[in-house]
Amino acid sequence: MVVELDESTGIAVLKMKNPPVNTLSLELLTEFSISLEKLENDRGCRGLILTSAATKIFSAGLDINEMCGKSMEHYAEFWRALQEMWLKLYNSSMVTIAAINGTSPAGGCLMAMSCDFRIMAENPKYSIGLNETQLGIVAPFWFKDTMVNTIGNRATERSLQLGLLYSAPEAYKIGLVDQLVPEENIQSAAATVATQWLTIPDHARQITKSMMRKPTVDRLLTHRESDIQNFVSFITKDSIQKSLRMYIEMLK
Amino acid sequence: MVVELDESTGIAVLKMKNPPVNTLSLELLTEFSISLEKLENDRGCRGLILTSAATKIFSAGLDINEMCGKSMEHYAEFWRALQEMWLKLYNSSMVTIAAINGTSPAGGCLMAMSCDFRIMAENPKYSIGLNETQLGIVAPFWFKDTMVNTIGNRATERSLQLGLLYSAPEAYKIGLVDQLVPEENIQSAAATVATQWLTIPDHARQITKSMMRKPTVDRLLTHRESDIQNFVSFITKDSIQKSLRMYIEMLK
Amino acid sequence: MVVELDESTGIAVLKMKNPPVNTLSLELLTEFSISLEKLENDRGCRGLILTSAATKIFSAGLDINEMCGKSMEHYAEFWRALQEMWLKLYNSSMVTIAAINGTSPAGGCLMAMSCDFRIMAENPKYSIGLNETQLGIVAPFWFKDTMVNTIGNRATERSLQLGLLYSAPEAYKIGLVDQLVPEENIQSAAATVATQWLTIPDHARQITKSMMRKPTVDRLLTHRESDIQNFVSFITKDSIQKSLRMYIEMLK
Repeated sequence: MVVELDESTGIAVLKMKNPPVNTLSLELLTEFSISLEKLENDRGCRGLILTSAATKIFSAGLDINEMCGKSMEHYAEFWRALQEMWLKLYNSSMVTIAAINGTSPAGGCLMAMSCDFRIMAENPKYSIGLNETQLGIVAPFWFKDTMVNTIGNRATERSLQLGLLYSAPEAYKIGLVDQLVPEENIQSAAATVATQWLTIPDHARQITKSMMRKPTVDRLLTHRESDIQNFVSFITKDSIQKSLRMYIEMLK
Repeated sequence: MVVELDESTGIAVLKMKNPPVNTLSLELLTEFSISLEKLENDRGCRGLILTSAATKIFSAGLDINEMCGKSMEHYAEFWRALQEMWLKLYNSSMVTIAAINGTSPAGGCLMAMSCDFRIMAENPKYSIGLNETQLGIVAPFWFKDTMVNTIGNRATERSLQLGLLYSAPEAYKIGLVDQLVPEENIQSAAATVATQWLTIPDHARQITKSMMRKPTVDRLLTHRESDIQNFVSFITKDSIQKSLRMYIEMLK
Repeated sequence: MVVELDESTGIAVLKMKNPPVNTLSLELLTEFSISLEKLENDRGCRGLILTSAATKIFSAGLDINEMCGKSMEHYAEFWRALQEMWLKLYNSSMVTIAAINGTSPAGGCLMAMSCDFRIMAENPKYSIGLNETQLGIVAPFWFKDTMVNTIGNRATERSLQLGLLYSAPEAYKIGLVDQLVPEENIQSAAATVATQWLTIPDHARQITKSMMRKPTVDRLLTHRESDIQNFVSFITKDSIQKSLRMYIEMLK
């Protein structure tokens, strides 16, 4: 991760950098949570822009290599790191703006949805969505909750059942992203939006954000261990491991 | 009911046939639940298209004759059969597509809303909605829950209070139906959509669907008996029985 | 408050009159609750149009003078009166139509959102919204719940965090108001809508309304005392009192 804090504005830019496609590996997730906690505790930092150091891709989602051929302990550790990242991001007291400068499936979409505001490059080749079912897997309940909070129940139901990936214009139309801008302007547009949000007194904004998001956060906290166990018992199935191995071969 | 399973596609077409207007009688509801259970247990069947054998009407909703001049036991049996139909349809592990080829008030609208996807003939004379209050009665909470899940809280509140029936174009605009097609194409359009949905691996799709719908299903299961008692005590009121008798006379 | 009941239609018009900007003072809130209860118990009254006797302003929201330099007992009494107003209005068995003939921030927006239907003068200078965070304060959870019920979760989250005030056309676009009419027609339009809603049998409409709104009402009833304590401990903070004093000076 590349983290740059502009002390004059109080806005940090956090660029995911895990070539070639910014998969969410255990290492990236852990580093992300540490970076976020540092910024959270830095009184000079009030806003965060989350974006990608790559071109054409925001994040490809979970790293399949972390889910294949490893121990049960590894799977549990990986899933806990994913939960931790989400808890920190969704619940952040900072203003969080996603500058989605490329395609963003599955876990990448989750990260974007967990910010306060989503700006996407208006490139119709870029897509975003929770496409888990297309791969034969299932988005966990807190991915679902985050999407329901963003686009409502019906759009989520259809979206999740079909594993839909939306082009940037489609994503804007259904409210999955809040703003489209020309690709070359996305970082400046994100800075402009962050600056606007930061005109609101922090204390009032933070209490309000927490009031909106706490029930969803609490739901994962309550079911955190069973969610890990669900993941581990699912991913260790022979049929799933076989599918993942084939998928990894295909990607090579 | 006419049930035809195309074994090559795994898609069954279930046509309601209770002339002249496909009212949901105790017999039709019971037959519906039995048909659905059979298809559910048939491993060759993965998708269901629900439509009407009549022209101009999908279903006129609950059969008023089942609610007038009968015993309390009959009313309770009727209501339980209605609940059972909904539980089986809303919770079906199959892909369920409503091909709404005519007007669909009240219970007819409930059946359509309980499918995964709704295609309606783009005939502006056809209407759909939960119009119970127009008749002086009240949609039960699980009709309401199903509508909130489909079109959201505010649209449901207005819709239910006023007992609104929406023309096909209006229904599309508010998201009560997902697609409009020329009347003559509705069956082929439904088959096309069902085929698309069936490209998603069954297991992942079914778990996802259940994750979305289980809380709503569980709510009726928890309150099932009190819901029956509510209906029976409401429908046996003298004033309601009188209204229903007058309404039946008027229909004759 | 000016209350006029048209006995021929059963529709009362309730005009807020607290010059110059209809702030919700303890006196106005108390009078409002008493008026509402009287109308509720008057069998000749079935509908209510809520509007403003002022020009250009519907209501400026809570009276800051009630929140500054007073005793803890006063703050508690004031907040309880606000809760009582909302409980009576949101839960009213009458058809309630807001005729929003001017700007309507904060508490004014709450009153409008608590009606069954909102008509706003299509004057782009008039605005409406829960702008609390702009003033460094926080909308309580039941303001938030009422807004979520009206415009959904995502629009509410953005709206509350930023303290957005929407112009009349914007408010219509996001569903915060249901209808825009030329300013001179707003009272007649409200009467027309009220008359339409009153064609629905009262009993069925009232049970339906209660089914939709009871969970939200119950939530405040359950947390009513802690909500009062939250308000009192917040408003008595030195920093908040200081801000309010400065704000009052500025208004002078």
